[in-house]
Amino acid sequence: MNQQFSSLLLENAVNEFSRLPGIGRKTALRLVLHLLKQSETDVEGFGNAMINLRKEIVYCKVCHNISDTEVCQICSNHGRDHQTVCVVENIKDVMSIENTQQYRGLYHVLGGIISPMDGVGPNDLEIESLVSRVQTGEIKEVILALSTTMEGDTTNFYIFRKLSPSNVKITTIARGIAIGDELEYADEVTLGRSILNRIEFTNSFK
Amino acid sequence: MNQQFSSLLLENAVNEFSRLPGIGRKTALRLVLHLLKQSETDVEGFGNAMINLRKEIVYCKVCHNISDTEVCQICSNHGRDHQTVCVVENIKDVMSIENTQQYRGLYHVLGGIISPMDGVGPNDLEIESLVSRVQTGEIKEVILALSTTMEGDTTNFYIFRKLSPSNVKITTIARGIAIGDELEYADEVTLGRSILNRIEFTNSFK
Repeated sequence: MNQQFSSLLLENAVNEFSRLPGIGRKTALRLVLHLLKQSETDVEGFGNAMINLRKEIVYCKVCHNISDTEVCQICSNHGRDHQTVCVVENIKDVMSIENTQQYRGLYHVLGGIISPMDGVGPNDLEIESLVSRVQTGEIKEVILALSTTMEGDTTNFYIFRKLSPSNVKITTIARGIAIGDELEYADEVTLGRSILNRIEFTNSFK
Repeated sequence: MNQQFSSLLLENAVNEFSRLPGIGRKTALRLVLHLLKQSETDVEGFGNAMINLRKEIVYCKVCHNISDTEVCQICSNHGRDHQTVCVVENIKDVMSIENTQQYRGLYHVLGGIISPMDGVGPNDLEIESLVSRVQTGEIKEVILALSTTMEGDTTNFYIFRKLSPSNVKITTIARGIAIGDELEYADEVTLGRSILNRIEFTNSFK
């Protein structure tokens, strides 16, 4: 549908919005007309929030998480456990783990996983910087928290090989039946692994 | 869910996005992370498109449609029929009618419909300016194209009463069974009206 806009400004705004993933032209128009009803200050706030984010954002030089400062809030927090590092694919995973409020260690954001199909090799990821961090000797445990896909497993194994000379403890997050899930609907691989990697009953109440 | 952001800039951008209608915090984060991956120029283009739209948009002083100029592209187009005016509720309706490419007249955007429940009275709408336009004598036909709701009917009737002294022809868009619809699934009111307002068979091929 080639919409007839009576205004180039409106057309431009709708075009910009509809370039975002999952936003079609109808939704874009609805959002733009909503913005048009807001005060000028509000719309400036919206536009400038995006511009400033893109302009001023930096990546933490320690863990490569998104940050406002050279070293992110997590890495510079002395209340956290600086001996444990959790390796994740991207900053969304950092947020997911932070939301659990169960983890008090640091992170290392790889920026992706090894995927030859997409042309992503180990050198495109922050693996060397992880090895350097571990070599400083401060880190006692590296937790691998990547997806359980072929690519995730490959990346896990690559990192494991790279880190094994340094005698750091390497763990991976537990895989199993999700809390609240019923066994009959679980897939065989997950159920099989959850039996193989069973834990002592008392542990689960720790 | 109170998400833990490692960056105030990111948090601010997500907050701004999630204020838009139909955009939750998860979608907002997805869109913001997408913008973050774009070039600085692209993101500036996006932000400034919204800011400039809000700042520079004007409403056509003739038909009150959204416009870049004092008189909109439609009203200033001499190729269009300046004797016919179609009265619509909002600028989305103008776009819908323009998309049909069947209408070559002008518009008049009311900016809403009479709705005592929402505190919208005739004086909140562009009805007086419609009356003035008709009084200039240039307009021969006014087409009412408002929604067929109680409020739409009230507004239609109010405009009809206001315009009747000026001897202009007042019509309303045809209501009936949509093209492609089956009779058995049509509601009784629509089907009933479409029988009452039946047209000569040859007319339908005009």
